[in-house]
Amino acid sequence: MKFGVFGGAVAKRGDATADSQGYKGMLDMALEAEDLGFHSIFLVEHHFSGSGQISASLNLLTYIAALTKNMRLGTAVTVLPWHNPVLIAEQAATLDLLSGGRLDFGVGKGYRDVEFDAFCVPKEEALPRYEESVDLIVKSWVSEERFSHEGRFWNFKDIVVEPPCIQKPHPPLWTAAGTDESITRVAGTGFNLLLDHFGSPQRTKERLDVWRTACKQVDRPFNPMEVALARGMTITTSDAEYEAAVEQRLKRVSSMFKSYGALPGLEKKDGPVQPETYADANLAMEDAAIIGSPEQVAARVRQFRDMGFEYMLILFPDDIETLRIFAREIMPEFQESPAAVR
Amino acid sequence: MKFGVFGGAVAKRGDATADSQGYKGMLDMALEAEDLGFHSIFLVEHHFSGSGQISASLNLLTYIAALTKNMRLGTAVTVLPWHNPVLIAEQAATLDLLSGGRLDFGVGKGYRDVEFDAFCVPKEEALPRYEESVDLIVKSWVSEERFSHEGRFWNFKDIVVEPPCIQKPHPPLWTAAGTDESITRVAGTGFNLLLDHFGSPQRTKERLDVWRTACKQVDRPFNPMEVALARGMTITTSDAEYEAAVEQRLKRVSSMFKSYGALPGLEKKDGPVQPETYADANLAMEDAAIIGSPEQVAARVRQFRDMGFEYMLILFPDDIETLRIFAREIMPEFQESPAAVR
Repeated sequence: MKFGVFGGAVAKRGDATADSQGYKGMLDMALEAEDLGFHSIFLVEHHFSGSGQISASLNLLTYIAALTKNMRLGTAVTVLPWHNPVLIAEQAATLDLLSGGRLDFGVGKGYRDVEFDAFCVPKEEALPRYEESVDLIVKSWVSEERFSHEGRFWNFKDIVVEPPCIQKPHPPLWTAAGTDESITRVAGTGFNLLLDHFGSPQRTKERLDVWRTACKQVDRPFNPMEVALARGMTITTSDAEYEAAVEQRLKRVSSMFKSYGALPGLEKKDGPVQPETYADANLAMEDAAIIGSPEQVAARVRQFRDMGFEYMLILFPDDIETLRIFAREIMPEFQESPAAVR
Repeated sequence: MKFGVFGGAVAKRGDATADSQGYKGMLDMALEAEDLGFHSIFLVEHHFSGSGQISASLNLLTYIAALTKNMRLGTAVTVLPWHNPVLIAEQAATLDLLSGGRLDFGVGKGYRDVEFDAFCVPKEEALPRYEESVDLIVKSWVSEERFSHEGRFWNFKDIVVEPPCIQKPHPPLWTAAGTDESITRVAGTGFNLLLDHFGSPQRTKERLDVWRTACKQVDRPFNPMEVALARGMTITTSDAEYEAAVEQRLKRVSSMFKSYGALPGLEKKDGPVQPETYADANLAMEDAAIIGSPEQVAARVRQFRDMGFEYMLILFPDDIETLRIFAREIMPEFQESPAAVR
């Protein structure tokens, strides 16, 4: 198995410590994660949240690229309806070039109502904007010749987009999906799949099975490194710590639900989970997140490995100690053992 | 006096060496320039040139930020009509935050016809787009409260832009100007002034005088660090090298003229210089660029210092040896001597 880290960082306005601390904790964690043997880092992107979330994810990853050697650098996800697709293709290609081909470009169509309102983009345009952007980004990356584009949302005339990417034909595209239908669609596009950190083990297993079936249907070989499963993780050393971690997780997930009304990938087989259903403490935390002693954590990872997962993204923990203990005491077992073969 | 470096880099499609070399020469030069005592680096931004010019300047500067400690990091210039002003404000703020407040944000309204055509932006919208963007970027940086914007080109609703900048109230804004009228306008805006590397010493002196007068008129104290003079420079060690450097410079300037029909800041007192006038070898190179032995170069720098310049940006030379010799043999004299006081 391989393990990455995943999450955001906070640099809040008006917070006296933000200027100096801001992204520093996340950056320190990112650099140490590389040394600890983590394979990748994926950063979120959000705008105008008022809580100081990362807005310029590709820029932050470019900074991290300069300070790391091997770690893959991903967005999870760049929300395409906010961006000029050609400018974002240039930025992504610049990161791919500077990092020696380490970009994993995660894209999405957006889900937060407040962001659609803020950008004055009607939510019903999310999908067509996303689709036009994906086509244009890929064309920008791969076209060696000048081309023009007359679309519903964007026009470009006689352009060739530079710099070139290192990865050929282009950096991998990743996207999140949660319903059976959307997972099946992703398999057909050639994108890789990001699975959220909210789903229960049972629902997560179903999703992987849907993915395998969908891959077969489109003659796509099943490559376990093309499915990244995100999970919250806290390694605890006492019952009190365990209780506190569970409570913390419940608080966060509930608050996200309240703020955004929906969470990406947090779906049942055929549609969104309702907040009131989800805010069940057991489903939300003890089950979906991985919390416990090193032995308990290892057992939970084994459970996912036995489903066939070989790539797990661990949410930035509050305390980097979780990553250290995980890397030293738990990771070695899984680096040796491939996922169950089906 | 202080000295910076200024220029672009090339990462061209289809060039087998581009992937690995691409921006590498420029990056090596940037990092060594910091060690040599250069105060700043300014990077150009261009799109779709087909020659592999830098397109994502803020991203490249963010990479450089991670590898440098003190050097200021500037764009020269970010062309605002191509960008979503709020997204570019986020990117710039992210760079300012990550670099510990080292951003110098150079902005312009664009001048290349081919870029206006490519982005499908009518050139007559350049100025109003630029002006709306500048207002929105500054507001994005400084507003601690949520705000909305209904403009001619952009709408945003109830946004607060994050992360915060380190520099307060916001990073310095720079812009290029060449005619007396535009220089006077810049003085009134509070922006700093970039002077091009094409103008003759005589015209350059006139421009500084216009700037001083304009500053007085608006009660802006004259701060020589708020005027950066760009200059081409090649240190040569023989007549043959001198001839080659002059010829090289002529070739480049003529080719830029041919490609773009205009060059930024290359104006007489009241309007553009025509290519046929400019392509006079003497004006174009021996006069405007600084080419010669260390003694000759020092004499030319003295000439500009005596006009009142204290900040000079040296175009990336073809051979980093020019920067090394300059830093070791020439810079020390000028670091000690302030510009002539007027």
